[in-house]
Amino acid sequence: MRTLDWVDDHLRMIDQRRLPYALEYLELHRWQDVATAIADMAVRGAPAIGAAAAFGLALAAAQASGAEPADWWRGFDEAAAGLAATRPTAVNLVWALQRVRAAVAALGAGATAAELARATLAEARAIAAEDAAANAALGTHGARLVPAQARILTHCNAGSLATVEWGTALAVVYKAHAAGKQVHVWVDETRPRQQGARLTAWELQREGIPLNLISDTAAGRLFQTGQVDLVVVGADRIAANGDVVNKIGTYTVALLAREHGVPFYVAAPISTLDPATPCGAEVPIEERSAAEVLQINGQAIGPAGVTAANPAFDVTPHRLVSAIITERGIHRPPYDMGAVVAAAGAEERG
Amino acid sequence: MRTLDWVDDHLRMIDQRRLPYALEYLELHRWQDVATAIADMAVRGAPAIGAAAAFGLALAAAQASGAEPADWWRGFDEAAAGLAATRPTAVNLVWALQRVRAAVAALGAGATAAELARATLAEARAIAAEDAAANAALGTHGARLVPAQARILTHCNAGSLATVEWGTALAVVYKAHAAGKQVHVWVDETRPRQQGARLTAWELQREGIPLNLISDTAAGRLFQTGQVDLVVVGADRIAANGDVVNKIGTYTVALLAREHGVPFYVAAPISTLDPATPCGAEVPIEERSAAEVLQINGQAIGPAGVTAANPAFDVTPHRLVSAIITERGIHRPPYDMGAVVAAAGAEERG
Repeated sequence: MRTLDWVDDHLRMIDQRRLPYALEYLELHRWQDVATAIADMAVRGAPAIGAAAAFGLALAAAQASGAEPADWWRGFDEAAAGLAATRPTAVNLVWALQRVRAAVAALGAGATAAELARATLAEARAIAAEDAAANAALGTHGARLVPAQARILTHCNAGSLATVEWGTALAVVYKAHAAGKQVHVWVDETRPRQQGARLTAWELQREGIPLNLISDTAAGRLFQTGQVDLVVVGADRIAANGDVVNKIGTYTVALLAREHGVPFYVAAPISTLDPATPCGAEVPIEERSAAEVLQINGQAIGPAGVTAANPAFDVTPHRLVSAIITERGIHRPPYDMGAVVAAAGAEERG
Repeated sequence: MRTLDWVDDHLRMIDQRRLPYALEYLELHRWQDVATAIADMAVRGAPAIGAAAAFGLALAAAQASGAEPADWWRGFDEAAAGLAATRPTAVNLVWALQRVRAAVAALGAGATAAELARATLAEARAIAAEDAAANAALGTHGARLVPAQARILTHCNAGSLATVEWGTALAVVYKAHAAGKQVHVWVDETRPRQQGARLTAWELQREGIPLNLISDTAAGRLFQTGQVDLVVVGADRIAANGDVVNKIGTYTVALLAREHGVPFYVAAPISTLDPATPCGAEVPIEERSAAEVLQINGQAIGPAGVTAANPAFDVTPHRLVSAIITERGIHRPPYDMGAVVAAAGAEERG
C-alpha cells in the first residue's frame, strides 16, 4: 500500500487522522499545507514524514520556478525551515531536507529556477522510491529472525502508513507472512493517539494477518504467560550507540522483553540512523498537547480541569535491543551505527 | 467520601460508571441488583466489592425474614453463590460472604429467620465499618513511607471509590497530604476501563491533591527522567508469599520501579490477603469483554471486525514489592501473609 505519492503537480497522501473509519486522501498543493499535515499528524512515522517533507520542498520549488535563482533559494530555505520545525524528534525529516538541498545545490550557480525546481522534485521522488525499496529489503532481512510460528508484539504503527510503502516493523511481518510463516500479531493500542488500534490493526487486517488488539497495560501479562515470541518495533531516530527513540511506551515493552528473555528487534531504514547524536539522551523529546491524553474522539476521559503530561517519545537503551534491522542487514550489539551509515555511503558512492 | 452505605432498608452506592461526568447513586433493594452492579462494575475495587456483597446478603436476608429458617438458609446460600460468581479475582468478595455466613451460623439452630436477618445486616455493617477504619489506619502507616516532597505514581483506582471509605493506596496519599507533606500524583489512565482517568483523577481533584494524568505508555519515560519518587497501588488479592494480583498493567509499573530503584508499595487491608493461596500464579485471572478494549464511550477505536484480548488483572511477583501496607503496619520481605492474618486474628480473638 502506497501512503503518499506525487500525482501530476502535487502531493497526494492518506489522511491518517480519518483511519480506521475512512480511507481518504489529502491533495496538497503548497508546502505550508504539507507542514500543517505533518504537525497535525495527518501523516506520521519517521520515513513517511521525511518523504512528505521532501515533496513539500518540491511544491515550494515549483511555485517559484519562474523566479530569479536568489529568490528561489530564499523561498526554498524558508520552506525547509518551516517543514523542519514541525516535529523535533524524527531524524528522517532533517535528513530528507538536507539531502534535497545538497542535491539541488550540486547544480551550481548557473542553474535557473526551473532547473532547480526539476532537481528538487527528482530528489524527492528518489527519496520516496528508495524508502520503499529499503523497507522491502529490511523486511526480507528481518523475516529471517521470525520463527515458523510466531506471536509477535508491536507498538505504535511502523507499517506502510509510517513509510512511503511496506513499513519497517510491519515489513518484517509482511515478508515473514509472505514466506509462509504463521504469524499472529499482538497490537498495542498505543495511547494517547492509538496508532496501534487505528492504523496497525487496520493495515494488518487489510493484509489478512491474524491479530489481536490489546490495551497497552495488557502487554505485561502476555509476556508473563509466555504468549510473546518476539517484539518488533520501528524507530523515529537511532543514535550512534544504538539507543532507539520511538513512540512513548516502547521502552516499557523493551524492558518487559528483556525480563522475559524475548528478543526485541528494531526495524528502520538507514535514513533513521543518526550517527551525529552519540546517545538517546541527547535527542529532543517532543511534548505534545495535553488534549491528546485528556480526550478521545473529542470526548473528555477525565474530570473537567484535570491536567496531563504528554511526552510523545521515549528512549530505549541499546542494551535492551537484541538487533537492529536495516536494508543493509541485521546488526547485533555492540552497535556502531556510524559504521553502518559510512558503509552504506561508501557503497552508494562506489 | 463514603462510597456505599446502608440507608433505611437498602444499599445506596455511587454509580462509578457515571463518573467523572456525574455523581449519581444507585438505590439497591434486591441482592440480584447488587450482583449486577458488581458484575457491571458500577462498584469495583476489592474492599468495596466485599462490603457491597455483604449488604447484598443483608437484602436477601431481609426479603426472607418471615420464612422458615430452612427456607431462609436456602435463600441465603443462593444469594451468596450468585454474588460470589460475579468477579473471580478479588478475594474480599469470598472473604466477606464467608464471614457473614459464619457470624450468622453462630446463632445456632434455634434462631428465627428474623433473628438471622438482623445478624446478617449487623455483620455487613461491621464489615463496612471495619473497612473504613482499616483503611484510615493503613493510610497513617503508609504515610510514614512518603518523603516530605513526593512525586507518587499510582495505577487504577485504589481510592475511596474502591473501598467503603478512604481507599487503600490513596489513603496513603490522603494521610501524607493531611500530615503536611507536599505530594503530587501521576495518575495512570489505566486502560481499558480508565479507572485512573475517571475515578482517581476525580477523587484527587475533589480532595485538592495536585495531579497529572498520563497515558499508561508514559510511565516509562517518567521513571527514565527521574520524575517518580515512589509508587503506591492497591490489590485485588495478595497471596501467602506476597505476590500481588491487581489491575492489568500493575506488573509493568512494578518492573519499571525496580529498574529505576524506585520503591513500589502495595496498600491493602487484611481482608485482601489470601494466605490459602500460596502464590499469584494460582489466582484465576478474569478475562473481560473485548468490547472494553475495542470501544471507548461507546465509540470504536479500531477497524470493524478486529478482535481483542482483555485480561483484567496481572500478577506482580513479591520480589518487585518493596513493602505491603496493611492496617497492622508496614510489612517488608520476606513476606509471610499467613502470619499477618494469624496475628490479626489472634488479636481480634484475644
